Amino acid sequence: MKLLKQKVMNEGIVLGSGVLKVDSFLNHQMDPVLMREVGREFTRRFAGEEITKVLTIESSGIAPGIMTALELGVPLIFARKQKSLTLTEDIFVEKVYSFTKKESNEITVSKKFIAAGERVLIVDDFLANGEAAFGLARIVEQAGGSVAGIGIVIEKSFQPGNRLLQEAGYRLESLVRIASLEDGRVTFMEEDEVLPG
Amino acid sequence: MKLLKQKVMNEGIVLGSGVLKVDSFLNHQMDPVLMREVGREFTRRFAGEEITKVLTIESSGIAPGIMTALELGVPLIFARKQKSLTLTEDIFVEKVYSFTKKESNEITVSKKFIAAGERVLIVDDFLANGEAAFGLARIVEQAGGSVAGIGIVIEKSFQPGNRLLQEAGYRLESLVRIASLEDGRVTFMEEDEVLPG
Repeated sequence: MKLLKQKVMNEGIVLGSGVLKVDSFLNHQMDPVLMREVGREFTRRFAGEEITKVLTIESSGIAPGIMTALELGVPLIFARKQKSLTLTEDIFVEKVYSFTKKESNEITVSKKFIAAGERVLIVDDFLANGEAAFGLARIVEQAGGSVAGIGIVIEKSFQPGNRLLQEAGYRLESLVRIASLEDGRVTFMEEDEVLPG
Repeated sequence: MKLLKQKVMNEGIVLGSGVLKVDSFLNHQMDPVLMREVGREFTRRFAGEEITKVLTIESSGIAPGIMTALELGVPLIFARKQKSLTLTEDIFVEKVYSFTKKESNEITVSKKFIAAGERVLIVDDFLANGEAAFGLARIVEQAGGSVAGIGIVIEKSFQPGNRLLQEAGYRLESLVRIASLEDGRVTFMEEDEVLPG
């Protein structure tokens, strides 16, 4: 997605150890026109799929998620992140480990919002190790629904999330794929390129 | 706002002690068409104001915020909530007390996203005591910007936020105003009605 690639090139800041800061348009300040285009692009890419809901995770997934849901004409659900939980009766809970923050969170979705048989599109801002996407997928499957696809705004293709999700059989669409953040610069994957290993 | 009022009537759940649960369309599951209409309505109401940015707070403010920013053609910033902070050099920090959760959070915005002279529209999902709105306003003012207005999706008019914000001189627009949640039911304010005290 050209507009997004340009934004990453012009405004992305490469920090040490594989971190790309995009807080001027995606993670803290957000560009609403870009978010609308992201929603349209996911809708175009998943046009062949029957989708009844979009599922994302707070906080940075909400803007791309709501724009995708608007284009698709279905509700958005955002999973909540919590350090620890007491009551769990009416919610689905999955544990998700963040390699960036080196901590585990419980992610939760109220049981009343995903019914058996639903076809859920998962949307998130970043894909690295795939922990959040797998956690969201497990919630959909706990509910007796199925994952219609996984839409990622920025994929760090040098981390294993892409490979693991594809091996698990999920249809994955990443709008921008980053081959490397080495030497302080962003190198994009070529279209349809596959990294070795 | 009629569509929103209907949603509150049909899907809002009154819990004890002044809590209105709207997790089927605003706080957990979100209705994207309603969010777009909320964005359009804020844009209509604040049409006379010069606005350079929209500011909200994670997580439930992001969807109405991004739709408002899209209509206005300006960026959205969402403030982050944190329990406690270590580094504070390049961020604005304000303490906000939540009466519902009985805890204080630090809310933060990166200094690079609000410049002196900016005219900021604050958007949030709920107004009760006004703690979050005041915290966001103080951040705008710390930056040398000014508050163009405060847009609230659902106002609990029986709590003091409305009065306190108006007394402080802010222009406030609430799309739905609730006079009472007593006896387990929602009573709306009449247009332009003012509660005694």
